[in-house]
Amino acid sequence: METGNIRINRQRLLDRIAELAQIGVIEGGGVCRLALTDEDKAGRDLVVSWMRELGLHVTIDQAGNVIAVRPDRQGRVDTPAIVTGSHIDTVGTGGRYDGALGVLAGLEVIECLNDADVETPCPMAVGFFTNEEGVRFQPDMMGSMVHQGHLPLDIMLGASDRDSKIFHEELTRIGYAGDVPVNSLKARAFVELHVEQGPILEQEGIEIGAVEGVQGLSWREYTFYGVSNHAGTTPMHLRNDAGYAASELAVFARKLALDMAGDQVVTTGTIILTPNLVNVVPKQAIVDLDIRNTDNDLLIEAENRLDEFAKAAAAREGLTITIKPLARYDPTPFDPAVVDLVAASAEAFGQSVRRMPSGAGHDAQAFAPNCPTGMIFVPSVGGISHNVKEFTEDPHIEAGANILLHTMLGLAGQSARPK
Amino acid sequence: METGNIRINRQRLLDRIAELAQIGVIEGGGVCRLALTDEDKAGRDLVVSWMRELGLHVTIDQAGNVIAVRPDRQGRVDTPAIVTGSHIDTVGTGGRYDGALGVLAGLEVIECLNDADVETPCPMAVGFFTNEEGVRFQPDMMGSMVHQGHLPLDIMLGASDRDSKIFHEELTRIGYAGDVPVNSLKARAFVELHVEQGPILEQEGIEIGAVEGVQGLSWREYTFYGVSNHAGTTPMHLRNDAGYAASELAVFARKLALDMAGDQVVTTGTIILTPNLVNVVPKQAIVDLDIRNTDNDLLIEAENRLDEFAKAAAAREGLTITIKPLARYDPTPFDPAVVDLVAASAEAFGQSVRRMPSGAGHDAQAFAPNCPTGMIFVPSVGGISHNVKEFTEDPHIEAGANILLHTMLGLAGQSARPK
Repeated sequence: METGNIRINRQRLLDRIAELAQIGVIEGGGVCRLALTDEDKAGRDLVVSWMRELGLHVTIDQAGNVIAVRPDRQGRVDTPAIVTGSHIDTVGTGGRYDGALGVLAGLEVIECLNDADVETPCPMAVGFFTNEEGVRFQPDMMGSMVHQGHLPLDIMLGASDRDSKIFHEELTRIGYAGDVPVNSLKARAFVELHVEQGPILEQEGIEIGAVEGVQGLSWREYTFYGVSNHAGTTPMHLRNDAGYAASELAVFARKLALDMAGDQVVTTGTIILTPNLVNVVPKQAIVDLDIRNTDNDLLIEAENRLDEFAKAAAAREGLTITIKPLARYDPTPFDPAVVDLVAASAEAFGQSVRRMPSGAGHDAQAFAPNCPTGMIFVPSVGGISHNVKEFTEDPHIEAGANILLHTMLGLAGQSARPK
Repeated sequence: METGNIRINRQRLLDRIAELAQIGVIEGGGVCRLALTDEDKAGRDLVVSWMRELGLHVTIDQAGNVIAVRPDRQGRVDTPAIVTGSHIDTVGTGGRYDGALGVLAGLEVIECLNDADVETPCPMAVGFFTNEEGVRFQPDMMGSMVHQGHLPLDIMLGASDRDSKIFHEELTRIGYAGDVPVNSLKARAFVELHVEQGPILEQEGIEIGAVEGVQGLSWREYTFYGVSNHAGTTPMHLRNDAGYAASELAVFARKLALDMAGDQVVTTGTIILTPNLVNVVPKQAIVDLDIRNTDNDLLIEAENRLDEFAKAAAAREGLTITIKPLARYDPTPFDPAVVDLVAASAEAFGQSVRRMPSGAGHDAQAFAPNCPTGMIFVPSVGGISHNVKEFTEDPHIEAGANILLHTMLGLAGQSARPK
């Protein structure tokens, strides 16, 4: 069967993106569909209705993940499939592309296969996973992590939000507490299209990112304990200023990232001084660092150097210090063959490609340890994400969806080379 | 008349300090007597009862300041007096010495003069001034500033606290809205005994501080505006990190203080990041600096260098910046003759003396522009103040009160040299 000249329907995809973005729309054209809210339910209902219109086999599992399967040429829906997907929940001030693009482009891919009467040697599936954003219930990427066996289902179902609402009750309330066991459909391979959510592609004038993996992440909390003193009466040399060591650490964090270079990033997102009054030397300072690298050895090096600096800064200032890991994920490499396939598909479409890490976590991360996995990035204008101003140009949406189509075909053993 | 061998009664003074400390006592032996509360009223009533027991002429002015005058040898109470005093209001977690020592030592001085039947060529007075601490109503040093004509009475009376209670109504409620015009008693000279509230005397093993003046103070708020970005997806070189410039400024503030040396102090008491989340590059950062120097030219130099650094840091990081003065007081020098008299009195008592600035503001500051003014400091254990652990050793209390006595006698033209 000749599949090289199939193309996705750009307008149909854009129309679906626009229609879904009306559910939970907020000022400025953004979207608020927090997981398991009425808006999430309405978004799910709309996407499921589209899945059913395409004649797909739709399952809802115990975690609320929804997977729609297009049968293989033997009509089977329960053998390992080429799976794509993402999420349709958003942050409080989200854009219309983050997550939704991956789901709706997957739907478009399948509609194209239907339109062209393409038969595939294995099922092709598109899904959306529950609570990827992790805003209302923690941790993030819950649905895909449970789906792929990295997080126990009970922990997910028992999670509660700030209003003490229980995940399982909310999932039942919106009608998405399915009875299908998680991961009852095995993935033969997984590929996800997503907006970059960063500025690299745009800054470098590149059209497609062939994602090589997700950066490892370490969140560390440094708490310095000093002595609260009067800002006027305490000479500089007699201070034990917790805030000073905190500031030194924040400045060093930047220096370290620049020294280590490569993919290393370090962010001082949180500083909390106590008592935080203009005329009082702070007795306590909390600094939360976000440290990421694609290489776990380098990530460990960064952690060690930051810890050493923090301890030395505390000692110089006569402070005590505690260091607490808040989160730690090893880097997740994607399958080089899938990365190559994404890159080759992009080149075949005349798109410039950059192999790059993902700085953010994605559902694909959950699949990577279990099956060949990859991701496709399209540029985010201004690198802006989790913001109503999030935007990706239509030609990039179209190119990304076409590359998703041909990568999935390639993974299924069909021609992946467009004509 | 021979006055050189008069000594204060240490136990009587300590007993009064202990009795006053029972009013508003809090856990740990500290005191909470916020201005114009029921506790402040009870403290005032007790001190006024002691003033009346000593046969003093007690006046309450429109600002609630209470002045008790011991007549001169002609029986006059309305000619310019040698005045001492301080405050009896406290911060929320205050100690028993801050303010109270100066008032009760003044009372003890007068009781000594009574006991010894000393006649003086001018009246001797002791007072306490309303709302020195400025915790409940701002600004601080209200009563003495109004008394000496630096703050309009109307502004004081119209001030409101966080619960929208009006100063004047609260002053009336506790029975201290007097009818005597402010500053109807002119001071011929003013001297105040106070705990140091800092660590210098203790660290240097010195017993008495002859205070040369109050440091000038500048509170400046620096607000940096950058771009909020994802901590994982934004390369280091594409960041506009408001928090980074804030940390650089805090580190530079320390460096500047050490470079300028002398009396220069700079404190970064407040840092507020927005959104202050571990995985988000801060889009806004507020830094409040407390900058003090005894020399106004040097204070201006420090302000200028900090402003220049902050602007340059903002420019390097691609941020915008606003700089807002929150408070500014010029340095207040005390009268060299009064400083000399304090030092000579201390030396005559065999006490070691250090001439030093006051890092904190005091009621004496209000008098300094209008009459010869000075202060006596006694050591604070550990430099601790505004804390229930505030403590000054009994021998230092006794020495300070004796030096207050003989400084006041010297100011009145009596022998100030103890035998």
